[in-house]
Amino acid sequence: MNEYAVGVDLGGTKVATALVRRDGLVVDQVIEPTQKEKGFENVIDRTGASIRAMLERTDSPVVGIGVGAAGSTDSQRGVVVAASNLGWENVPLREMLCERIGDEWQERIWVDKDTNAAVLGEMMYGAGRGSEHIFYVTVGTGIGGGMILDGTIYHGVSDGASDFGHLVLDPDGIICGCGKRGCVETLASGVAIARMAREALNAPDSTTILSELDPGLISAYDVAVAAMNGDQLAKDIFIKAGYWLGRALAYYVDLNNPERIIIGGGVMGTGDLLLEPVRQTTHKFALPNNAAAVQILPAGLGADSGVIGAAAFVWPHHKESPQEYQEAT
Amino acid sequence: MNEYAVGVDLGGTKVATALVRRDGLVVDQVIEPTQKEKGFENVIDRTGASIRAMLERTDSPVVGIGVGAAGSTDSQRGVVVAASNLGWENVPLREMLCERIGDEWQERIWVDKDTNAAVLGEMMYGAGRGSEHIFYVTVGTGIGGGMILDGTIYHGVSDGASDFGHLVLDPDGIICGCGKRGCVETLASGVAIARMAREALNAPDSTTILSELDPGLISAYDVAVAAMNGDQLAKDIFIKAGYWLGRALAYYVDLNNPERIIIGGGVMGTGDLLLEPVRQTTHKFALPNNAAAVQILPAGLGADSGVIGAAAFVWPHHKESPQEYQEAT
Repeated sequence: MNEYAVGVDLGGTKVATALVRRDGLVVDQVIEPTQKEKGFENVIDRTGASIRAMLERTDSPVVGIGVGAAGSTDSQRGVVVAASNLGWENVPLREMLCERIGDEWQERIWVDKDTNAAVLGEMMYGAGRGSEHIFYVTVGTGIGGGMILDGTIYHGVSDGASDFGHLVLDPDGIICGCGKRGCVETLASGVAIARMAREALNAPDSTTILSELDPGLISAYDVAVAAMNGDQLAKDIFIKAGYWLGRALAYYVDLNNPERIIIGGGVMGTGDLLLEPVRQTTHKFALPNNAAAVQILPAGLGADSGVIGAAAFVWPHHKESPQEYQEAT
Repeated sequence: MNEYAVGVDLGGTKVATALVRRDGLVVDQVIEPTQKEKGFENVIDRTGASIRAMLERTDSPVVGIGVGAAGSTDSQRGVVVAASNLGWENVPLREMLCERIGDEWQERIWVDKDTNAAVLGEMMYGAGRGSEHIFYVTVGTGIGGGMILDGTIYHGVSDGASDFGHLVLDPDGIICGCGKRGCVETLASGVAIARMAREALNAPDSTTILSELDPGLISAYDVAVAAMNGDQLAKDIFIKAGYWLGRALAYYVDLNNPERIIIGGGVMGTGDLLLEPVRQTTHKFALPNNAAAVQILPAGLGADSGVIGAAAFVWPHHKESPQEYQEAT
């Protein structure tokens, strides 16, 4: 178990780089603001420096480096294809990291999307332990997914699998950032929850503790706090968001027959407020046998889930025992 | 290539049993009515007799037996779990076939649902050749699916994957045989197409050559013939059915990022009549990158697709060359 991997969680706000033991323990970590406005070369310079510092600080063998990026990736070539949160397009991240930390890492860097890091982390250390058929959904500002089928991350034919946030549920609905109307993301994300609250405040006769806040500044967090304090209007908003998430998850359940659905992301801090309506709706709309086969659970990993999941990319490619590894290198 | 498998296509109307060469050629076949009213033991008696006759008639090595059943199956245990068309529930088909053809077949009989036979047959010999990421949809009286991911049939955690026909698209829609409302099957199957035609005939001012037929007897086939003869009302019905199929396929495309979608089943005799609106709608509702990655094609195998696909269950389990096989047995 004394093997280590480096995990990098590359997000629009912050970049976290950590040394993670094979059992999921974070033993060293650097977190810094992304400052994407400085450009991708600068972000990768600083990420490379963090990795190098981490490699120098440890005496233990580091087997590989996993990067979970907030965007779509080409996991074969190690390229970030499109990441709107970062403003990146076709950035050859593996190659650029190697230029900074040394070419000997070429075969030992894995780049994949952050939701795939999350689902792998949950399988190995979190709410997915013991299962090999898992769908992970993150509900935060946006909505995304990652899937494990038969114990392995499933990418699809062109790394496009698990695009859960843009399933169209209401073709006449609100326009989404992707250009379509009525995507899951427009109906159940943190942004959608805040929007529903603002709309409800505009309705006449609405009685809610949210009316004490500046409508223009209401966040999903405010709605969650109000709901946890028993505010009915706020609770109804979570029921509505949970309904739409459940409708979309029922499609996943009937198509891919998972054993666990794990929901993470900022909005999941609300626990059963969102999870209960999700469970009810998924069970109502999926076929009984498939609904009975699946458990819907909150994510098991906490604040470090991003780096733990990213570091986990390394292990499926490294099947040898620690001894075999040391002999081979 | 001189290896053979027996394929059995077990449907509600007929049972087809064939000797199929590894390259997909059917060299011997028996087709008989299912006569399910005689009970499952009787159906399996006759199927066993057909298989025995086939094994006796050939001098070539028969590697295994594949059965594609019209219903849900437990592919590990070889059990038909629920098949409403056959009236079967929890029928231990592999075991019962072995009682009739000999216990030496125990390890060499594969039972799976007929849509999984179809998708495997299409991958090996039909419209799926050259791809390992395929979704097959059958549009006939009902609607079902089967998927190949990374070159292998994907079953899900409890053999419930690919339940495409019961994705709910219109929660306020018509009640389905499964008890839910507005499933794909109620909107795009052969039965749905016939129903839409009957409803259209009841509308005042409808002008269509279908009005010459007895409304109570109109079938999807009649609607297809009318559409192919330029009847606008009939064409619009196919456009509508294709729209709903495309809506549901867009979910598959964004979740599983396939390379080919293959549409078969009775209604597909109509070709582009159904396929064109399916393509347009799928492209409209799926994300651009995922839509660009997939081709939507008609099935490549014809009338014998059921037995060819069922026989194909044998080959993934039989990787040896013919020589190795003969030495091993």
